Amino acid sequence: MGLKGGPTQDEVMAVSLAKLGIRPGDRVVDVGCGTGKVAIAASRVAEHVYAIDRRPEAVAYARKEAAAAGAGNIEFFEGDAVEILANIDRLDAAFVGGSRRLPEVLDLLAATVRGRIVVNAVMVETLYEAIRSMQRLGIFVEAVHLQVSRSAAIAGGVMFKPQNPVYVIVGGAGCS
Amino acid sequence: MGLKGGPTQDEVMAVSLAKLGIRPGDRVVDVGCGTGKVAIAASRVAEHVYAIDRRPEAVAYARKEAAAAGAGNIEFFEGDAVEILANIDRLDAAFVGGSRRLPEVLDLLAATVRGRIVVNAVMVETLYEAIRSMQRLGIFVEAVHLQVSRSAAIAGGVMFKPQNPVYVIVGGAGCS
Amino acid sequence: MGLKGGPTQDEVMAVSLAKLGIRPGDRVVDVGCGTGKVAIAASRVAEHVYAIDRRPEAVAYARKEAAAAGAGNIEFFEGDAVEILANIDRLDAAFVGGSRRLPEVLDLLAATVRGRIVVNAVMVETLYEAIRSMQRLGIFVEAVHLQVSRSAAIAGGVMFKPQNPVYVIVGGAGCS
Amino acid sequence: MGLKGGPTQDEVMAVSLAKLGIRPGDRVVDVGCGTGKVAIAASRVAEHVYAIDRRPEAVAYARKEAAAAGAGNIEFFEGDAVEILANIDRLDAAFVGGSRRLPEVLDLLAATVRGRIVVNAVMVETLYEAIRSMQRLGIFVEAVHLQVSRSAAIAGGVMFKPQNPVYVIVGGAGCS
Repeated sequence: MGLKGGPTQDEVMAVSLAKLGIRPGDRVVDVGCGTGKVAIAASRVAEHVYAIDRRPEAVAYARKEAAAAGAGNIEFFEGDAVEILANIDRLDAAFVGGSRRLPEVLDLLAATVRGRIVVNAVMVETLYEAIRSMQRLGIFVEAVHLQVSRSAAIAGGVMFKPQNPVYVIVGGAGCS
Repeated sequence: MGLKGGPTQDEVMAVSLAKLGIRPGDRVVDVGCGTGKVAIAASRVAEHVYAIDRRPEAVAYARKEAAAAGAGNIEFFEGDAVEILANIDRLDAAFVGGSRRLPEVLDLLAATVRGRIVVNAVMVETLYEAIRSMQRLGIFVEAVHLQVSRSAAIAGGVMFKPQNPVYVIVGGAGCS
Repeated sequence: MGLKGGPTQDEVMAVSLAKLGIRPGDRVVDVGCGTGKVAIAASRVAEHVYAIDRRPEAVAYARKEAAAAGAGNIEFFEGDAVEILANIDRLDAAFVGGSRRLPEVLDLLAATVRGRIVVNAVMVETLYEAIRSMQRLGIFVEAVHLQVSRSAAIAGGVMFKPQNPVYVIVGGAGCS
Repeated sequence: MGLKGGPTQDEVMAVSLAKLGIRPGDRVVDVGCGTGKVAIAASRVAEHVYAIDRRPEAVAYARKEAAAAGAGNIEFFEGDAVEILANIDRLDAAFVGGSRRLPEVLDLLAATVRGRIVVNAVMVETLYEAIRSMQRLGIFVEAVHLQVSRSAAIAGGVMFKPQNPVYVIVGGAGCS
């Protein structure tokens, strides 16, 4: 697709979902849902998923993907995450794939989410901001650097092509 | 625990399970089950898990872990994987965490497994042998190199401590 | 040795020296010289090396290493880098292996160094601070993430043991 | 340039040269010289460099680069490395950037090179073959996996773009 950033790498999504630990009955938010890939995967276990993106083209794209996947329990919101999150009062887990105003988003999530908060970051600034905000809120659990390389066939053998490295920053209530 | 190799890293397990794509009703084998960590995780979705290890202390350890986790659908086998696999006639997915006689194990799995076969390797020789065997059998899908580093707090900040890099080699029927 | 941080990895040193591009006749500073490993390597090409560390045990150790290596062109300083750098008026290259007051150190180096400034960082905070300071000063060239893994013989084969990942941040006059 | 494989990454070259440890007076060979980048860098310290490539376009390209760099001590050979190496009787160091018939090349180098032999590999098969050949010859020293990622400016910050991971395999006389 043409959305900036593209979909989350399969391997990074697998690790992020494992860190989130979503259980049946959970209410989950996906902030900066992009293609909807993580929201759809989460919706297979969660009871309800809120998917937010400020870009109309992202929400349109993700909505179509969700319909194709038969994911009927995803509620889409187009707009600013800070404003939308202010109106959601109970969450069990939160995934942040991308967001402006990250410190404010984390303030709101720290007050609302009972389980894990997982941020994916590719930029140094986002990594730094996510750790710092979580430390300030007393919810920082860990950060993981994931470097995935995938095999590619070339003449004579198999080599590895690296994917963009991603930081997975994990926070959780009472876990600082 | 004291078992050689230790348990599979959480992140590597998450990726391996995602590649396996286990579904409800599936019959899964864990070859070289070690601590039982992957078998127990697989047993939460699969109908039945066969867990094999040639080391009595591994089987004893894994059995205890499975009991503690309330995993009642894992059948343990102590012995040589090649001999044990010869007596299992239908499998939906296979995880190979470690094994002697890997080419023979893969021969048997290629003939029995309807879905994915996932091998974890830390040694160059195992990586090479797994790819080569899967190519020979026409079932090689991909190999992924995973380098996970985890945050550690040190004076003044957060640094990353690297885990041992792991190769995840994926095969599947009709997917060469 | 017992110095905190230990010596710079061989591979990281090779890359850092390549980025520094030291030439015969150059005057070079090593800020936070630790074991003296980088200062000694730099002294083989440079005309003069200033090696600074605020820890007496580091300076004592590095001095001994330099003597053993026959490196007669290294001048050692024990104390605060900011104060010591204020008295050095011309430099061709600077390596910063570690330092408190990094932004101030970079302010001074940006005003004094005619060639490259290379910072090694293991902490997220140092990486962030180094990039930010260099951007502010208009001298940021690039940052490189180095993940080195070294072979280790284990029963049956060769595996890779990862070293701590290191960020190499490069700045230079007129290169922003 | 259009040569397959492209030039060696700067960081990988820095590490490879450090492992080679070329000294003034040394006679060095670059097998599979490609763009000539490593040969030219080696020629700055070595007394004489033999640069071999079986592709006429590589030799032509490298020759031009060497001339532009003022490297007058590089002798170029177009052809099969096994045949050409058979006629060189004394070498102090050898770099193998790429080669068919690697085991035979290593046989010849093991008999001729007094110092270090460094192979760069991107393929699993080459890594495996290089280690295995060096072990057979009793000259295996170590293998290093290098994953370099370089900063890239994107909207709002700095991210890291990964380069292809490279294996640096090191051998040396009497070092098995």
